[in-house]
Amino acid sequence: MYLIGIDVGGMSIKGGAVTLDGQIVFKTSIPTTEKYTAEYSISEDIRKVIDAVLEGANITIKDVKGIGIGQPGSIDSKKGTIRYSNNIVLENVPVVAELKRYFDVPIFINNDANCAALGEHVFGAGKGYNDVIFVTLGTGVGTGFILDGKLFEGRDCAGTEGGHMQIDMSESAPACSCGRKGCWEAFASATALIRQTKVAMESDKSSLMYKFAEEEGKVSGKTAFLAAKAGDKTAQKVVDTYISYVASGLINLVNIFCPDAILIGGGISYEKEYLTNPIQKAINENRFGAKFNPKVEIKTASLKNDAGILGAAALAL
Amino acid sequence: MYLIGIDVGGMSIKGGAVTLDGQIVFKTSIPTTEKYTAEYSISEDIRKVIDAVLEGANITIKDVKGIGIGQPGSIDSKKGTIRYSNNIVLENVPVVAELKRYFDVPIFINNDANCAALGEHVFGAGKGYNDVIFVTLGTGVGTGFILDGKLFEGRDCAGTEGGHMQIDMSESAPACSCGRKGCWEAFASATALIRQTKVAMESDKSSLMYKFAEEEGKVSGKTAFLAAKAGDKTAQKVVDTYISYVASGLINLVNIFCPDAILIGGGISYEKEYLTNPIQKAINENRFGAKFNPKVEIKTASLKNDAGILGAAALAL
Repeated sequence: MYLIGIDVGGMSIKGGAVTLDGQIVFKTSIPTTEKYTAEYSISEDIRKVIDAVLEGANITIKDVKGIGIGQPGSIDSKKGTIRYSNNIVLENVPVVAELKRYFDVPIFINNDANCAALGEHVFGAGKGYNDVIFVTLGTGVGTGFILDGKLFEGRDCAGTEGGHMQIDMSESAPACSCGRKGCWEAFASATALIRQTKVAMESDKSSLMYKFAEEEGKVSGKTAFLAAKAGDKTAQKVVDTYISYVASGLINLVNIFCPDAILIGGGISYEKEYLTNPIQKAINENRFGAKFNPKVEIKTASLKNDAGILGAAALAL
Repeated sequence: MYLIGIDVGGMSIKGGAVTLDGQIVFKTSIPTTEKYTAEYSISEDIRKVIDAVLEGANITIKDVKGIGIGQPGSIDSKKGTIRYSNNIVLENVPVVAELKRYFDVPIFINNDANCAALGEHVFGAGKGYNDVIFVTLGTGVGTGFILDGKLFEGRDCAGTEGGHMQIDMSESAPACSCGRKGCWEAFASATALIRQTKVAMESDKSSLMYKFAEEEGKVSGKTAFLAAKAGDKTAQKVVDTYISYVASGLINLVNIFCPDAILIGGGISYEKEYLTNPIQKAINENRFGAKFNPKVEIKTASLKNDAGILGAAALAL
């Protein structure tokens, strides 16, 4: 038997046939349309990907235990609908009902960060832990929670937006996409790091950050890390401050949940120990009741590029 | 059958005999000792209160379904031990095992804020809701979480410290008792409100706050509210700013949990709608996905002075 995992992103819909122990045997993708309508629902494109996966893996729907879909935005996993999504503009799309017309297997949909958390818990670095928080440091800051071995979604699947904790109430705090100011996401996302890097470059025209940005052709989430590793002090300050922002939100979550482990994913997680070591130290020292409470491990996520497909597939397990 | 609820506080240990539907038939208390030792454990004083409750309610231990104990600090409810407590200085006290020698009924211990959340859920304003966050605005800011109808404690009962979310990362942020700076508790506790009130009074010697403080004999959590209601602009600014601090942390929790309701307890909750109306508005407007997500109700807790005894009793239900 196989699982089918569908990873809906802003640019493409990826799909894969996955064995029950998490091996991808075939994967493919198609680009997302500019604008889906009631007449041409996103479910049509998801159907195309599922058909392509069945064909490419040389299996039929009878070989499929279930289909899971990971989708950015607010998802009602109980009803199987996309409540809304900003990135690809969608409102109240009954994806599961629409796909059920074509595929007579269990079909599940959930928020992409929730899927990523579940995927790491079932197939990746979160295996064997009962309580795991997954945090993705990418365009935004996404959070997913495994509590007592189960995916936690909040009431009516409308919680788990840890990226939208306000960690700076001041008037001068950076605006967040959610409408508030000073959310964790506005400090700890890759987008925020790029902004912080650019500001620091303006302040120090001799910084090595210029060299690394030129080599890559742009200022990215890597620029400050690369220059800091090469000994640039301005870049080191950017990195240290950025890491303190990441740690601030993580300690908040540790104080509320006390998970076994926090897994960091997203582009910034490629910095590995350079990122996780100082965060581990900050959590050990600054969490509530540090002296008495059980240790929380900080690790990077392990599923990387396939996290989307595997996380979605894990929904159907 | 009765429940016995024990409410351990900094000044006294209260106890009550409670019917299964939450009526207190008898209550009493004794003062807490300055310093408990291995030889004279806090369990000895708890035992005295239980004996006094049995006698006062004219019942025997055979009439008791179970005993619940609410205790400030870090409690390991599974092991039945106080891991540590700052207020009354305690470390690794096996309270349940110690009391089991005397009372052959189920005995439970939990953190006081957790008990308060459970008490409101079972007997108070949280009845009928599946997901409730209880927040107490008192000396500190305590939080308790009912998720999917059950008390959530975090892994190893070491979570639910929502008061220790950092909401201000700046160097100038007020210090928190936990060692961090800028925790929600350092802005939204009654202690913090008193500090904010005193600073505002310094800045406006003609403020009505002086009159109300004089009448009460001190600056309290009520001073700014009373003066604001009487038309004092400086006091109104204190109140508005304080409420924005309370709302900041609550919106963070709403974005993570999306509870049915948030119940506010503690001294400041006596301000009722004057407090909850602007908070409800702030949450409705500023939470993540405000337009699409289900409403979260803000109410004041209902158990008031008996919350401690009833919450502890609810542990034994």
